[in-house]
Amino acid sequence: MTPTAPAGALTELRLAELHGSLSSPISDSMNFLNEVAHRYPDAVSLAAGRPYEGFLEVEAVSRYIDTYRAHLSERFGHDEVLVRRTMLQYGRTKGIIHDMVARHLSVDEGITADPESIVVTVGCQEALYLALRALRRDERDVLLAVVPTYVGLTGAAELADMRVLPVRATETGIDFDHLAAVVARAESDGLRPRGCYVVADFANPTGVSLDLDSRERLLRAAEEHDFLILEDNPYGLFGDGSAPLPTLKALDRSRRVVHLGSFAKTGLPGARVGYVVADQWVVEPGGGRGLLADQLAKIKSMLTVNTSPIAQAVIGGKLLEHDFSLRAANAREIRVYRDNLRMVLQGLADRFAQGDGPEVTWNVPRGGFFVVLTLPFVAGDDLLEESALRYGVLWTPMHHFYGDGRPRREIRLSVSHLTPEEITEGLDRLAAFVRAAAAGERGGR
Amino acid sequence: MTPTAPAGALTELRLAELHGSLSSPISDSMNFLNEVAHRYPDAVSLAAGRPYEGFLEVEAVSRYIDTYRAHLSERFGHDEVLVRRTMLQYGRTKGIIHDMVARHLSVDEGITADPESIVVTVGCQEALYLALRALRRDERDVLLAVVPTYVGLTGAAELADMRVLPVRATETGIDFDHLAAVVARAESDGLRPRGCYVVADFANPTGVSLDLDSRERLLRAAEEHDFLILEDNPYGLFGDGSAPLPTLKALDRSRRVVHLGSFAKTGLPGARVGYVVADQWVVEPGGGRGLLADQLAKIKSMLTVNTSPIAQAVIGGKLLEHDFSLRAANAREIRVYRDNLRMVLQGLADRFAQGDGPEVTWNVPRGGFFVVLTLPFVAGDDLLEESALRYGVLWTPMHHFYGDGRPRREIRLSVSHLTPEEITEGLDRLAAFVRAAAAGERGGR
Repeated sequence: MTPTAPAGALTELRLAELHGSLSSPISDSMNFLNEVAHRYPDAVSLAAGRPYEGFLEVEAVSRYIDTYRAHLSERFGHDEVLVRRTMLQYGRTKGIIHDMVARHLSVDEGITADPESIVVTVGCQEALYLALRALRRDERDVLLAVVPTYVGLTGAAELADMRVLPVRATETGIDFDHLAAVVARAESDGLRPRGCYVVADFANPTGVSLDLDSRERLLRAAEEHDFLILEDNPYGLFGDGSAPLPTLKALDRSRRVVHLGSFAKTGLPGARVGYVVADQWVVEPGGGRGLLADQLAKIKSMLTVNTSPIAQAVIGGKLLEHDFSLRAANAREIRVYRDNLRMVLQGLADRFAQGDGPEVTWNVPRGGFFVVLTLPFVAGDDLLEESALRYGVLWTPMHHFYGDGRPRREIRLSVSHLTPEEITEGLDRLAAFVRAAAAGERGGR
Repeated sequence: MTPTAPAGALTELRLAELHGSLSSPISDSMNFLNEVAHRYPDAVSLAAGRPYEGFLEVEAVSRYIDTYRAHLSERFGHDEVLVRRTMLQYGRTKGIIHDMVARHLSVDEGITADPESIVVTVGCQEALYLALRALRRDERDVLLAVVPTYVGLTGAAELADMRVLPVRATETGIDFDHLAAVVARAESDGLRPRGCYVVADFANPTGVSLDLDSRERLLRAAEEHDFLILEDNPYGLFGDGSAPLPTLKALDRSRRVVHLGSFAKTGLPGARVGYVVADQWVVEPGGGRGLLADQLAKIKSMLTVNTSPIAQAVIGGKLLEHDFSLRAANAREIRVYRDNLRMVLQGLADRFAQGDGPEVTWNVPRGGFFVVLTLPFVAGDDLLEESALRYGVLWTPMHHFYGDGRPRREIRLSVSHLTPEEITEGLDRLAAFVRAAAAGERGGR
């Protein structure tokens, strides 16, 4: 893969002279995990968190585009020049399906959002980066995050030169005493916690959801300590069928919550469309004020200019075809994720019954893509490598989600993209690996 | 447009507490220019630099996607699961049409690029940001730019917290004495010039191209002072029909040049697809080495994850339909831009003949989208406002491209998206404005 020209006369840069994020453990984590998956293509992957692809259809792309086009044509009184310009030219920085995103949020989440407070982004990852870049004025500005946390959050923060202060999780969400202590310590160190990143529903990597009381306490804590809540919600629709809890944004009375959304799991991953609702006021030195969304749009104009209107049309068409309800659009996917989660939890119980073999425990999320297993041994990258090579099964060492590099006994299993056959085979292989590794561990002591 | 709820209990941020780029003159420039255009929708715009849209067709989008799909299907031996996964799932960070981009560069530009050294990006703007973010380790890392320069460069640099040191332009490109002086001064100040941004062909905003000697001198200067050249090439195909000069990348023997490309003008603006060729070696502390492209991909994975494969399929399909030649694909557009440029230059000569009325001069670019006029008065934002309001014509004050805020006598005219009727009408209005403003200026003295 690497060019073979003689190196003597060629330009060389040193990694240590490039941006610090490129030398960080997070960046190495991402590389390692990708690379392991590529080296063992025949392994069953309980690692990849990608959405189920059994219902994806290339044909649907053109149909969605046509649906969106017909909608525009009607809206513009069949002025085809305007339709063409909207779908094919450079366009509005904040996006062209912002009104549709607002309707979806109202229909599916009970969130009332002014369309002008929405920026349509290149996936949720860009939305996250826009928010962090805006909030990070200088090295005193820091971010709180409930850990273990999404590796893309840690990476985006490093890219924005923004330090992340970890806040301890509990089984129902957040250790609020620890949160208060972290904030107090930060303030006494001259730091300013500007936001707290949280996935309230079926978090990556733990699958844990905040209970209603924790949601309300987090909103109060944000008021009290004057930070924003960055609520990321990629998995909210994928519950177990019981009544969903309101999102933090739906509970937000004072515009404390910046709501980050993704259509990668509910729309189409290949469209790379996400969004942010940023309805906070920003006061200018002269006293004028505008929405945080408009500041994020300024950053976006320097980063990606605008989100492809063709990609937006794909998502817009899907929203139109389902009356703006992605819950309705994903009826089949919701069933698959629910069945997969049940099957994995049952499969774990069948293979790791108490008192029979190594002591393995796991949490029981009520939805989402992930389950966390606690093993009787430390499960780092070396054991993943062995698991892939000798047992043909991939999983994710949890230490990658703590950002401190300390190996742990926990691993993350992803259930989202598997067929029933793959679940059975994958858990069989995992059980074989765990038994062998536990025996080796005991033998070695 | 702004929400009307009572402000008392709502979250307020202060602009001064957000990232510095949001308070900068560049950001205000962009806003002002956008906003003027929106306030005077009936004005003829000699300001907007967008591509000609007369040949754009919404139908082509689905056709390109089908063409690309058929290509993949053949490549994957008609394994439709792989086709679907490639086009619709999360995908390769560096992109899926990198091989096609390499073939296009070979066919149209005589550039030999290893496909592995290419990262497909969300427009050229993301490519630019990736490069700057990678090269900016700390506050000592600075960027050289030949000014006046593209406002998106200045904005991306601000977003990356990277200072831009302006280098003077000449009529054939670069004042090399000034370049050497700027570098010497920077080094004595403890700064490290990491790159020099340049548009070698038909630059925005000046329309000027580097002659062959300047290209070679710039490559030598980059060797001598150990900086990279960031070559941005959005307009290279749109020459006057004479033999095009080789790009800096085509002349590059030592991998000094990071080549930034855009499909916004040659492919489809609404796809938002660009790319970067970054074939420099990066040496890791352990002694291993890889391509700069792989470091840029790490940053991209934290910024936008990957470029929409659907958007890439649109560009891939267009490349396939024209045997990878965008010069061939743009035969009609190339003619329009050439005719428009000629018509504008002739129209200026007709309206501003020497010795007859106010003294107006202009440069005569051999291609591209832009012409620069020098007026007998300072033409700032206030006069643009008056021109729009009273004469119904928009243009761009050149001070926005210097980054120093100092008003100047120069304005930029864009010729790219106009019909012949709009050119005639626009120049008539411009001439009326200039005559009145020059008379007012004389009267006022």
